[in-house]
Amino acid sequence: MDKLKELADFVTSQPGYTSAVGTEVVHVAKGEVHLRLARRPDLLQFHGFFHGGVVAGLADHAAGAAASLLMPPGKIAVTVELKINFMAPASGPWILARAEVLQSGATISVVKVEVFTEVDGAERRCAFCTATMRAVDAPFQRAKAP
Amino acid sequence: MDKLKELADFVTSQPGYTSAVGTEVVHVAKGEVHLRLARRPDLLQFHGFFHGGVVAGLADHAAGAAASLLMPPGKIAVTVELKINFMAPASGPWILARAEVLQSGATISVVKVEVFTEVDGAERRCAFCTATMRAVDAPFQRAKAP
Amino acid sequence: MDKLKELADFVTSQPGYTSAVGTEVVHVAKGEVHLRLARRPDLLQFHGFFHGGVVAGLADHAAGAAASLLMPPGKIAVTVELKINFMAPASGPWILARAEVLQSGATISVVKVEVFTEVDGAERRCAFCTATMRAVDAPFQRAKAP
Amino acid sequence: MDKLKELADFVTSQPGYTSAVGTEVVHVAKGEVHLRLARRPDLLQFHGFFHGGVVAGLADHAAGAAASLLMPPGKIAVTVELKINFMAPASGPWILARAEVLQSGATISVVKVEVFTEVDGAERRCAFCTATMRAVDAPFQRAKAP
Repeated sequence: MDKLKELADFVTSQPGYTSAVGTEVVHVAKGEVHLRLARRPDLLQFHGFFHGGVVAGLADHAAGAAASLLMPPGKIAVTVELKINFMAPASGPWILARAEVLQSGATISVVKVEVFTEVDGAERRCAFCTATMRAVDAPFQRAKAP
Repeated sequence: MDKLKELADFVTSQPGYTSAVGTEVVHVAKGEVHLRLARRPDLLQFHGFFHGGVVAGLADHAAGAAASLLMPPGKIAVTVELKINFMAPASGPWILARAEVLQSGATISVVKVEVFTEVDGAERRCAFCTATMRAVDAPFQRAKAP
Repeated sequence: MDKLKELADFVTSQPGYTSAVGTEVVHVAKGEVHLRLARRPDLLQFHGFFHGGVVAGLADHAAGAAASLLMPPGKIAVTVELKINFMAPASGPWILARAEVLQSGATISVVKVEVFTEVDGAERRCAFCTATMRAVDAPFQRAKAP
Repeated sequence: MDKLKELADFVTSQPGYTSAVGTEVVHVAKGEVHLRLARRPDLLQFHGFFHGGVVAGLADHAAGAAASLLMPPGKIAVTVELKINFMAPASGPWILARAEVLQSGATISVVKVEVFTEVDGAERRCAFCTATMRAVDAPFQRAKAP
């Protein structure tokens, strides 16, 4: 489990979008990854809620991490397609994406992601997402080479 | 038409995610909005392509703008759900989202968005998206009040 | 609860597609409807599995019934959009769709539907669906008039 | 092209759902398949429109045929996931699904399907669908063996 968390942390902290927005890995288990993002002015839309693209991006990364961790070493999941319903304003101080792999196959994985925010001190689901992933070669060995 | 472009520019330049990432309105017509985003290190995933959340976010904003411009004054579109297929790496120096309203109803609008990037000097479609929107009251009058 | 079951039975047994394919209401509760369909040669595709359209149709009807039962009298849910992942062959002697309402709003409802079949005597999930519904006036008063 | 039409006709006329509902192949070209279905009482929902499952089933089959015809001999497309927006009542004497392959890859194909019906003598789009397909071995050699 420690190794899974380490791998998720490593992917998430790579230079790029996920680290730039401040994605935090809060839970990793077999087929499960939970990611959190704190509120920041540059992540919001015009009503002051987390932007749909930011919510979708967190769900996407959670889905990818959860699916990747069930794949053989050297493989990583990329997103074939993602579908997300926005059910309530993502108006709280953070959003939390909970990804759970529904199917992990040789070619295709399917992941469910529920996104929550905090309203009046309680967790509220603000989005529901399914993502279809496929395995590709992981780029990290090359990326780390000097 | 000038008024439509002005409105799309106004919404897009509001403080928040869309302006922070550098979204540029490149075309506005009845039921159509095209938005462009230039490559920036903090918008990429680990392969060096635009992150799926960034692609989805641009598609989402293009869909919202296109649907909003067909709504009565004082109304703005929010996203009920969004579905996006990632078909090729968004590997170029920019991505361009072309939204086209398929249906504009009193309650529900449906928008198709195709996202393109540049590969070897030519445009290539990298994502295909549909979004379902609904009308809510626009928050801008309040936002602009002193 | 009996009244909910009665209503779901009534809608399902109306002349048309759902009764023609043999849809059976097996469970009804607040925000939940389970429907079953028995294998029949005219419901299969070329591998001998339930056809995707039949699986989607059962999921659609289950979603509609579950959402409708939370609506005010005289209203019924129609499907705005439906998204379904086919995860395993629907190869058993029946399929069972379990719908659960995730969000029930004045305008929009969101329903999750999982579809199961029987493989080697055990239940296996073969599809995962989300559906977005909206309320319209129910046509049944007219339909029942002599 | 004749050979493509022949293959689409063959798959569509196999015993099972697509032939039972009366699916008719009306156009086949590279990456395109159009299928028509005539109105029949057992294909309708309670408002007297084509049932969502029937619309989705026609779209699904059109997507599968269009994708399959671009695959190597012996391969056939199965549906990974399908997403469909119902935009207007499918109230006419027939529905027509026009599938167009957007991407045809070694692993994954993406197909757009628009479904039309006839209203007041004119064609009207009633549904918009995207489907993600993957290649599997075709079962027809076995099916044809005596």
